[in-house]
Amino acid sequence: MTYFNNIDKIKYEGPQSTNPFAFKFYNPDEKVGGRTMEEYLRFGVAYWHTFTGDLSDPFGTGTALRSWDKYDGMDLAKARVEAAFEFFEKLNVPYFCFHDVDIAPEGSNLRESNQNLDTIVAMIKEYMKDSKTKLLWNTVNNFTHPRFVHGAASSNNADVFAYAAAKVKKGLEVGKELGSENYVFWGGREGYETLLNTDMKLELDNLGRFFRMGVDYAKEIGYDGQFLIEPKPKEPTTHQYDFDVASGYAFLQKYDLADRFKFNIEANHATLAGHTFEHELRYARVNNMLGSVDANQGHPLLGWDTDEFPSDLYSTTLAMYEIIKNGGLGSGGLNFDAKVRRGSFAPEDLFHAHIAGMDSFAVGLKVAQKLLDDGILDDFIAERYSSFREGIGKEIVEGKADFHKLEEHALGLDRIENQSGGLEKIKAKINQYLLTLYAEEK
Amino acid sequence: MTYFNNIDKIKYEGPQSTNPFAFKFYNPDEKVGGRTMEEYLRFGVAYWHTFTGDLSDPFGTGTALRSWDKYDGMDLAKARVEAAFEFFEKLNVPYFCFHDVDIAPEGSNLRESNQNLDTIVAMIKEYMKDSKTKLLWNTVNNFTHPRFVHGAASSNNADVFAYAAAKVKKGLEVGKELGSENYVFWGGREGYETLLNTDMKLELDNLGRFFRMGVDYAKEIGYDGQFLIEPKPKEPTTHQYDFDVASGYAFLQKYDLADRFKFNIEANHATLAGHTFEHELRYARVNNMLGSVDANQGHPLLGWDTDEFPSDLYSTTLAMYEIIKNGGLGSGGLNFDAKVRRGSFAPEDLFHAHIAGMDSFAVGLKVAQKLLDDGILDDFIAERYSSFREGIGKEIVEGKADFHKLEEHALGLDRIENQSGGLEKIKAKINQYLLTLYAEEK
Amino acid sequence: MTYFNNIDKIKYEGPQSTNPFAFKFYNPDEKVGGRTMEEYLRFGVAYWHTFTGDLSDPFGTGTALRSWDKYDGMDLAKARVEAAFEFFEKLNVPYFCFHDVDIAPEGSNLRESNQNLDTIVAMIKEYMKDSKTKLLWNTVNNFTHPRFVHGAASSNNADVFAYAAAKVKKGLEVGKELGSENYVFWGGREGYETLLNTDMKLELDNLGRFFRMGVDYAKEIGYDGQFLIEPKPKEPTTHQYDFDVASGYAFLQKYDLADRFKFNIEANHATLAGHTFEHELRYARVNNMLGSVDANQGHPLLGWDTDEFPSDLYSTTLAMYEIIKNGGLGSGGLNFDAKVRRGSFAPEDLFHAHIAGMDSFAVGLKVAQKLLDDGILDDFIAERYSSFREGIGKEIVEGKADFHKLEEHALGLDRIENQSGGLEKIKAKINQYLLTLYAEEK
Amino acid sequence: MTYFNNIDKIKYEGPQSTNPFAFKFYNPDEKVGGRTMEEYLRFGVAYWHTFTGDLSDPFGTGTALRSWDKYDGMDLAKARVEAAFEFFEKLNVPYFCFHDVDIAPEGSNLRESNQNLDTIVAMIKEYMKDSKTKLLWNTVNNFTHPRFVHGAASSNNADVFAYAAAKVKKGLEVGKELGSENYVFWGGREGYETLLNTDMKLELDNLGRFFRMGVDYAKEIGYDGQFLIEPKPKEPTTHQYDFDVASGYAFLQKYDLADRFKFNIEANHATLAGHTFEHELRYARVNNMLGSVDANQGHPLLGWDTDEFPSDLYSTTLAMYEIIKNGGLGSGGLNFDAKVRRGSFAPEDLFHAHIAGMDSFAVGLKVAQKLLDDGILDDFIAERYSSFREGIGKEIVEGKADFHKLEEHALGLDRIENQSGGLEKIKAKINQYLLTLYAEEK
Repeated sequence: MTYFNNIDKIKYEGPQSTNPFAFKFYNPDEKVGGRTMEEYLRFGVAYWHTFTGDLSDPFGTGTALRSWDKYDGMDLAKARVEAAFEFFEKLNVPYFCFHDVDIAPEGSNLRESNQNLDTIVAMIKEYMKDSKTKLLWNTVNNFTHPRFVHGAASSNNADVFAYAAAKVKKGLEVGKELGSENYVFWGGREGYETLLNTDMKLELDNLGRFFRMGVDYAKEIGYDGQFLIEPKPKEPTTHQYDFDVASGYAFLQKYDLADRFKFNIEANHATLAGHTFEHELRYARVNNMLGSVDANQGHPLLGWDTDEFPSDLYSTTLAMYEIIKNGGLGSGGLNFDAKVRRGSFAPEDLFHAHIAGMDSFAVGLKVAQKLLDDGILDDFIAERYSSFREGIGKEIVEGKADFHKLEEHALGLDRIENQSGGLEKIKAKINQYLLTLYAEEK
Repeated sequence: MTYFNNIDKIKYEGPQSTNPFAFKFYNPDEKVGGRTMEEYLRFGVAYWHTFTGDLSDPFGTGTALRSWDKYDGMDLAKARVEAAFEFFEKLNVPYFCFHDVDIAPEGSNLRESNQNLDTIVAMIKEYMKDSKTKLLWNTVNNFTHPRFVHGAASSNNADVFAYAAAKVKKGLEVGKELGSENYVFWGGREGYETLLNTDMKLELDNLGRFFRMGVDYAKEIGYDGQFLIEPKPKEPTTHQYDFDVASGYAFLQKYDLADRFKFNIEANHATLAGHTFEHELRYARVNNMLGSVDANQGHPLLGWDTDEFPSDLYSTTLAMYEIIKNGGLGSGGLNFDAKVRRGSFAPEDLFHAHIAGMDSFAVGLKVAQKLLDDGILDDFIAERYSSFREGIGKEIVEGKADFHKLEEHALGLDRIENQSGGLEKIKAKINQYLLTLYAEEK
Repeated sequence: MTYFNNIDKIKYEGPQSTNPFAFKFYNPDEKVGGRTMEEYLRFGVAYWHTFTGDLSDPFGTGTALRSWDKYDGMDLAKARVEAAFEFFEKLNVPYFCFHDVDIAPEGSNLRESNQNLDTIVAMIKEYMKDSKTKLLWNTVNNFTHPRFVHGAASSNNADVFAYAAAKVKKGLEVGKELGSENYVFWGGREGYETLLNTDMKLELDNLGRFFRMGVDYAKEIGYDGQFLIEPKPKEPTTHQYDFDVASGYAFLQKYDLADRFKFNIEANHATLAGHTFEHELRYARVNNMLGSVDANQGHPLLGWDTDEFPSDLYSTTLAMYEIIKNGGLGSGGLNFDAKVRRGSFAPEDLFHAHIAGMDSFAVGLKVAQKLLDDGILDDFIAERYSSFREGIGKEIVEGKADFHKLEEHALGLDRIENQSGGLEKIKAKINQYLLTLYAEEK
Repeated sequence: MTYFNNIDKIKYEGPQSTNPFAFKFYNPDEKVGGRTMEEYLRFGVAYWHTFTGDLSDPFGTGTALRSWDKYDGMDLAKARVEAAFEFFEKLNVPYFCFHDVDIAPEGSNLRESNQNLDTIVAMIKEYMKDSKTKLLWNTVNNFTHPRFVHGAASSNNADVFAYAAAKVKKGLEVGKELGSENYVFWGGREGYETLLNTDMKLELDNLGRFFRMGVDYAKEIGYDGQFLIEPKPKEPTTHQYDFDVASGYAFLQKYDLADRFKFNIEANHATLAGHTFEHELRYARVNNMLGSVDANQGHPLLGWDTDEFPSDLYSTTLAMYEIIKNGGLGSGGLNFDAKVRRGSFAPEDLFHAHIAGMDSFAVGLKVAQKLLDDGILDDFIAERYSSFREGIGKEIVEGKADFHKLEEHALGLDRIENQSGGLEKIKAKINQYLLTLYAEEK
């Protein structure tokens, strides 16, 4: 049985290939910066968008044509597992990710939900034995069901807090069972609709308590995946507590959790928060908090989370630049938290979209590595900040300067000379690297 | 000699007054919540907008008609001091604020600039002897001069770092001399234009070092004003390090500076960062970091800092609600970091605008206090979160719950019942309070 | 049988009423500007939000508690009609509005859908006989069903165009049958996801053809309700053709349809397009194109259509100012295209929300009328533009000036004197009118 | 004498060149789509940004280092002309553009300003004799001087209207004298700060009158350059009348001016209005209103006009796609209304920036032409809309269908089948074309 019967395993065919079902730039075995692309890029498929989602939007019902939709209930859940592993293999992708409700339907109560989950988790475990594809991370969905209308760990209702905790407990057990390398928290409704009815202090304290309990339970059961927080500024709530990496970092420091957590950074969430994707990566990196990536992109003129497949090569290049500088993502990866457009409802579009995303990051990796190999950005930066490696600058960095010494220095300056920041020249250089990447290889 | 010769001292005349040069709602001596309005509201005039600014914009030269503009150089600086104290007295305002360059022109070098500053500071000190108006805060301008093109404490140029430090050193001395109750840092160009040429790690570390030296020097000279950081997400730079209160708080925690700093929160900066004004106040408040307020407002459809005088009564009400809950602003105040519109270039507009702002906050104070007195929001919130004061909720809050106990509780729940958040009813209530405030007084 | 069994008919109880189920400011029989409030405000209830919607959002299933949800299929449709007319009567509202699919479920084909519609339309007609509530406007939903994935009248698929036309044909017949005073077009998916696959010229031409056919058919069957276009810039599509009133007006002029159409202006759509609500109203008014209003509001910091119930008194005041200046809305009205928040899921919230909206517009009407009665804005404007009522200004307006004459005038000017625009004073005045409205009445 | 003494004439050196002062992709003589690049791209230099601007911003004074800044007054104006023509020649650019005040300082009255202008215009005319560089368009600046505080043609002050008219009169004469191929109107302050003090109807009518007089005067003096309106939604005013192309088109139709005007479309203005650059180009093109282009780009996360030099190859590709489809720009061109960043203050940056921009559009031209040659987008679109070339679709397009016929067709449809919009595949294809452009050439 097959769910994608017209599509063969995707192979690398090179830049000029006319086959739409081929990688043109992603060559899993090609070495870049000392690792294979596959090792570096660690791509993951998002179960929810690819196997569970129906492409509905606030003004329309689902359009997706999926061969498994003839089933329902647990049969549908099982068919999705079959389809997923067929897809993983054909796409040759090393990882996947899921929320609990993506893989198994909720039952009429928590016990039944957990039973459904157990059934599907066991099935997935079987499939994983014969598959190269591993679980990058798992999580639980504490936002879709009406019980979470006012939040989960930040709900005003202690029953809801308890229910959310029980779900995360199960999520950690599932993570251990399937060997997930990370466990993610996206606080879908951890925020507020309005301050007018909100006790922000209690909600933040409760969030801190919740995470602490999660850390404790993971330790208890020996689950050692990396914990990840995924910032998002708004949507569905008006304002979410994990607005961006910085606000998450403030929270983790305050509640003394910074040593156990890193961030799962999503491109589209970054831009909704008013940051570039690369800003969030950089900020996390320099604070040693870069954990994993939700690889997608938003539309700069739309104010909601569009979760588009990544195709912007500027963005993938700058993202990979940060990731290379970070020494890779460790246990993290590049999860395509992306959905085909509502108008791209054919099953083939799932392949086109993932190929586009994987090719885009492959190009980003190669351009970024080449920029690094040639010292294009680093040499310029080294020169720009050279005044901090000698004289008064060195004293500042080494903690030997104070306001007296600095004033004395300033009073002695005839004039201050700055150098051009050279942005236009740098941007032209990046274009040149992009445009000549394959010309040079040839 | 007078600079505003047609305008008398502004007095309170009550809601129905037809005199445009009268307070209609701000009655300095009226008691609200146990303090006089004047004690609570602690209004400040921003020297730069009111006495130095010319209402130019990126597409136009200045339009402001100011009687002191017939002077220049140090004479102009002196005339501005005279005009300022006339204005303060006529407006009956308890505070003012300035940057170094607002009050005295820069000289051809640092020494000369400091001399200019000394002259004017001495003059201001004289005027303050006979005036009720005190210095809410002072700061130095480390962003206008071309030397700061790449930042000040986060510049790539150590000379610039030193120069900026020397200016802050002087600023702290001026603060001590004039008894400023706070010292503010607004990092006008502490951020980046592009990550492509930026060493974010070094810049943030240097910022941390800079603040540490400031703390040390203040201690050395016995300046004990509150240190304040003023967040702003962007403009003039593409991305500023003090993006919002949360990012500032993350920074202060990391560099171990949180005990010496609080935040100076500006309404228009909040909205540019994607937050409501009241969000920033609340977030600072619950983290015990609310220091002072730059009282202005932005235009929700414009993407730059418009610095309008506050007139939105919803915003002033919610702001005062936070301030009352905070027990007031301590050494902070409500500084009108606001400028009359370019089209409001007449000297009288300076009065109209400040009166509008003061009246708006007076109304906000009264409505907020009344909402509190009647328990309108607090009672609803207390009820909403009541599940955390008993049973499993109490155990959560007291740290006695773990995932096992919570799962057990969740498994035992038949169904979870949530209560409506009631936003529409609350908003109607606030409108009712606003509309009947003066009807009830009558 | 009753669907809202705890709630009695809503009555006017005045500003100080503590009854949440009472009008405090909307007094239907009170005269303002020579008409009763009811005549002026012409409120309508939106069937889709109030009786059909379930408060789901992109991240969550429905939360709404509705007593009629125990039914399904045609029984549900009938229960909704019963509930609707109970609601209309209790709310004492003169109008309602619907899309075809709000009132009757789609069948398995067009014929069956039309039969369902006929059944419910007949039932509604019966109910209307005993009700004061009339149909402000109707429309058809040409965006929810998957067939409309690529648009309706602007679809690339001629079958879809035909299907959409057949639905509008039926919609016009329903409008005639129920006496709707307007027929509305909201082009939910009339736009594009991407230009890369779009023939904009053909799509716009087809839209023109579609509207022309609609005009012809209405004439044929003697339906003489006002045709209305409802602009929205984006969502669900990336870019919609009826972006704002101006783009709609450009379209209507080009396709020679401007005499048969006016605009239905929605506040939240205005702000999504980068305009204030009052801008869209003003622009339509001065071009004689103001038809009706979708009365809601958006959140200034959120980038999607939140459809909140109107509560901002500044906005309602400025909206009513335009509507009064327009001599009222003619056959149009104020339709609450607004939904209670997802967290406001109790049946009572439907009443709270509508009361809040009706009270807000009642206040807006009264403040606007008072501003007009006292000439607050008009007198200032008359004075501001007085130079166009004499001399060279008069010649300009009367078409008697040319560049020669104007240059001659300009060469003769010693200096040009402008007057302050006075924005801050005007804003203070509006606050004063708002705050003293009920104090004065008392 | 030379103003850029270290820089030689810029030459084409090909994609791999390491010379930063060389074109790598723009080869003026290379033929693309049957024309040379120079003929197609018609680049222009913006006098204001490159020779007059000082890189000040709202928070800082100018940083630009310009060798001509040692002069002032008319000497400065003359030095700028010399520098400009040296720059034009070294950059090998066919066009330039200016506002009156860019080239000559305003005098103390209109007569004196005109004299200054005459002097410099005569000088420019002399320089043009020996230069290949022609005047793409000229305009007058009716927004910087305080007299225009409330607008120019839409001012409330008839004297200002007259003054603005006199300046445009002179502008048309200058255009005739120097042979400008277009005359541009950018309504810098033609809009409003607030509706509260604005008579929109009179202002729009006056704008219509003003343009009509301009048309008449051009005819009178035999100036036959294309008239262009340049839309911008906001900044400096809160709301500008020429918000976008659609609103400009509505205006031109209403005031019967559409036959004499086209649009000058600026990329950054498009995005500020909520449109992509290519949207504005497409909308203008399908309405036969595409005149010229201000080639720059904005920052998607900043809410003001950043006027960056174009470097985004996606944007230049889609722009050139529209321009090729338009059969070129006729008398229009690609004017770099772009400024180097404040941090790029060195004279060399002016060259880097223009080279970057010219190279980016050259790449855009080549990719777009190749996409067209290979029918990548067009074939897909032709197939997508094929249903309108036969059967019921053909009848719709030919005006032979009405609602009766369409309903009959719809009733006969068993099911409607749509095809995937294929966005992800198309985007991957564009990336492939970009990445292999030079690999294939090699």
